[in-house]
Amino acid sequence: MKNILVIGAGLSASSMLRYFTQHAESEDWYIKVVDQNAALAQSKVAGCSRAEGFSINALDPEERGPLIEWADIVISMLPARFHIDVAIDCVKHKTNLITPSYISKEMKELHEEAEEAGILIMNEIGVDPGIDHMSAKKILDEIEEKGGKMHIFESFTGGLIAPESDDNPWNYKFTWNPRNVVLAGQGSAAKFIQEGQYKYIPYNKLFRRTEIINIDGYGDFEGYANRDSLKYRSKYGLDDIPTIYRGTFRRKGFSKAWDSFVQLGATDDSYILEGSKDMTKREFINSFLPYNPNDSVELKLRHYLKIDMDDIIWDKLVWLGIFDRTEMGFTEDVTPAYFLQKILEEKWSLGKDDKDMIVMWHKFVYKLNNDYHEINSHMVSIGEDQTYTAMSNTVGLPCAICAKLILNGTIQTKGVHLPIHKEIYKPILEELESFDIKFTDTVVDPPVLYIEPSRV
Amino acid sequence: MKNILVIGAGLSASSMLRYFTQHAESEDWYIKVVDQNAALAQSKVAGCSRAEGFSINALDPEERGPLIEWADIVISMLPARFHIDVAIDCVKHKTNLITPSYISKEMKELHEEAEEAGILIMNEIGVDPGIDHMSAKKILDEIEEKGGKMHIFESFTGGLIAPESDDNPWNYKFTWNPRNVVLAGQGSAAKFIQEGQYKYIPYNKLFRRTEIINIDGYGDFEGYANRDSLKYRSKYGLDDIPTIYRGTFRRKGFSKAWDSFVQLGATDDSYILEGSKDMTKREFINSFLPYNPNDSVELKLRHYLKIDMDDIIWDKLVWLGIFDRTEMGFTEDVTPAYFLQKILEEKWSLGKDDKDMIVMWHKFVYKLNNDYHEINSHMVSIGEDQTYTAMSNTVGLPCAICAKLILNGTIQTKGVHLPIHKEIYKPILEELESFDIKFTDTVVDPPVLYIEPSRV
Repeated sequence: MKNILVIGAGLSASSMLRYFTQHAESEDWYIKVVDQNAALAQSKVAGCSRAEGFSINALDPEERGPLIEWADIVISMLPARFHIDVAIDCVKHKTNLITPSYISKEMKELHEEAEEAGILIMNEIGVDPGIDHMSAKKILDEIEEKGGKMHIFESFTGGLIAPESDDNPWNYKFTWNPRNVVLAGQGSAAKFIQEGQYKYIPYNKLFRRTEIINIDGYGDFEGYANRDSLKYRSKYGLDDIPTIYRGTFRRKGFSKAWDSFVQLGATDDSYILEGSKDMTKREFINSFLPYNPNDSVELKLRHYLKIDMDDIIWDKLVWLGIFDRTEMGFTEDVTPAYFLQKILEEKWSLGKDDKDMIVMWHKFVYKLNNDYHEINSHMVSIGEDQTYTAMSNTVGLPCAICAKLILNGTIQTKGVHLPIHKEIYKPILEELESFDIKFTDTVVDPPVLYIEPSRV
Repeated sequence: MKNILVIGAGLSASSMLRYFTQHAESEDWYIKVVDQNAALAQSKVAGCSRAEGFSINALDPEERGPLIEWADIVISMLPARFHIDVAIDCVKHKTNLITPSYISKEMKELHEEAEEAGILIMNEIGVDPGIDHMSAKKILDEIEEKGGKMHIFESFTGGLIAPESDDNPWNYKFTWNPRNVVLAGQGSAAKFIQEGQYKYIPYNKLFRRTEIINIDGYGDFEGYANRDSLKYRSKYGLDDIPTIYRGTFRRKGFSKAWDSFVQLGATDDSYILEGSKDMTKREFINSFLPYNPNDSVELKLRHYLKIDMDDIIWDKLVWLGIFDRTEMGFTEDVTPAYFLQKILEEKWSLGKDDKDMIVMWHKFVYKLNNDYHEINSHMVSIGEDQTYTAMSNTVGLPCAICAKLILNGTIQTKGVHLPIHKEIYKPILEELESFDIKFTDTVVDPPVLYIEPSRV
């Protein structure tokens, strides 16, 4: 019997735990799920005789140590900053570890210790990061094998609302952490490289520099640039690639309207808005507009952001209720970003039958025998319901499948890794197809290239 | 004989040291000036038998302690973060202290210890902060004395180029730390209150929300909001004032053109621009623009920032040489803000006969006997040359005069203070007039009011 420990039983653990409980008998597994919330942990493995859920304080080494020692593999669904402590325990007890989060510098430094302990610590094996790495690396390796040289790599992922549940003018609902959506793109400028030229987009232009991508059968999406595309050059072994660009998908038209909030300053999370406890939505918007007692908030906003009378972003803004004279019921003053989040949550929350959707799209342009070639590859995954969402499936299933492959010896790699090696991504991508998480590749002929720079 | 210790002999110490050396005989003073640079310290007191300049490491308590013990008063011109260590020594040795910098929390907490030691620690007694406090508080106190209740307080200060040296399309040159000019307004949103409504301006709108002020004889200026106007409510005892707004002056038209750099992201100091070591100015600008090999940088910039063919900001941008195919000669990659600073320094540096100018303007609206009244008050100070600049005079002379008034017993206050009490500001403002640093007050009748909010 192999023992599996899952730390954290939140949203993204549902599909993973279903996979574990369904395979527990055939694979001879015993699963323990721990969470701060015992009832939640129990509910996620209910009815499975080879699994139990209970509560521990996973941040306490005394409490988690014996469980890590007991386990053959740990899947940590904790917030990313806590993974390193779990990893150190895993090295100590020679227990494999899987996390869906971005690898940290400290985690990388455990590589040799993990190798010596004979364990695998697999990071970034959710959806983004995760399925993006695996699906991209599969095609990149194929191109390399046939002697092609990569010229352009672009990649976009979005967590969106499924078409059948898409019933608002933003074509958007919160299918994941609302706070992250409000703060998306803040911090340092977005960085990428295009035809060998470094390009930088500050936050105040991020949502106006989008790229439109059509996905057959699903219509138009738009992508805005992710923080740092450049680091993927070394991750993917593409150090000399002239163009690399990664971004986030929204439905076409979202970003231009969202930029209104960016321009207002309403997404700022760095200060407390004085008096916001008692502000109406309308007063909240007005706090970012010039003072003028004779003009309405509506006209001031149109003028300030130069929104024409017939601009469709206006309907989006009005639909959100931002001009309503209703208070939010806060018990204390909040930041602009929090105030905005709460306005949005009233409108962008999922209805009980709503389903989410994960969309991923890659573009590969490579040179082979002096000709350019282009492949596009996309994956669309629709959630089953609000437990087994597309997000939960695409985050949890790669983790679960990876765990199985480690436990049954298919994956033999040791050390600290990302899922960018064929031994790892190949069987995982193959099994994901049985869950309808699969990529469709298209050859684009002639390829869509940027012209070589004639002048700057 | 009274002993004066000046720590730091940089630009802003020149006028102060001239004052001290000129008064040394009549006031019976001995002055020691210390700086990292011994020659600089010596040059600032050359020819005065009652003064000497030499080098110490002022950050070393062993070196500065005996000098602080020797002195009756210390003027610290160190970077603001070092004042607190000097202040602690001053309490220990019962030596008075003056700094032109913003008061820190730690400094405030020394109040009782300073009182017990029988010393005065005077902060914020340069120009801004400094002369702004004194000149505003003088009129605020007068209004209060006659029973008026303040309704609007606005205050703007600018360090600019004197009209006779104003010969470029930006009407601007660097008369002070260029880095601070490039970074101005970054960080948290600007906050103020207008007719009881809190208002917030994010960085990306800061230079588009300016106010135009005409100063008789000097033409039009424009002001953009300072970081936090709200904290001046408690400083000035104006807790219930409906409108308070503080800002920075530029010449009219500067901010709209400057906003081009803000929108591009060229003022960002938070990351290193890859490859910037070898970039031309043109390539620097291009790194913020969308990739397109068929369009010129000029056209891409015009389109990106929506700059019309006849917009006068275009001439400003072209004049700066931002489209030049010349490299900067950096020895390593730099941040966007630093790259921009170096472009600007080539164009905005002072010619050898150029003079600077400090402009300050206050607006006071108060209610008395059910009528509103308005007073405007302004001060314009032109530099003498590039040693005794307007900045050096307006920062250094208030410190110097304050020191004299402490040493000769005119100022008796003890503890940690700002120059907002009549005993302090009155004699200082009076003596500043003899240096042509004086305010002209104008009654505005009828007063320019914001109308009471009829609707929002």
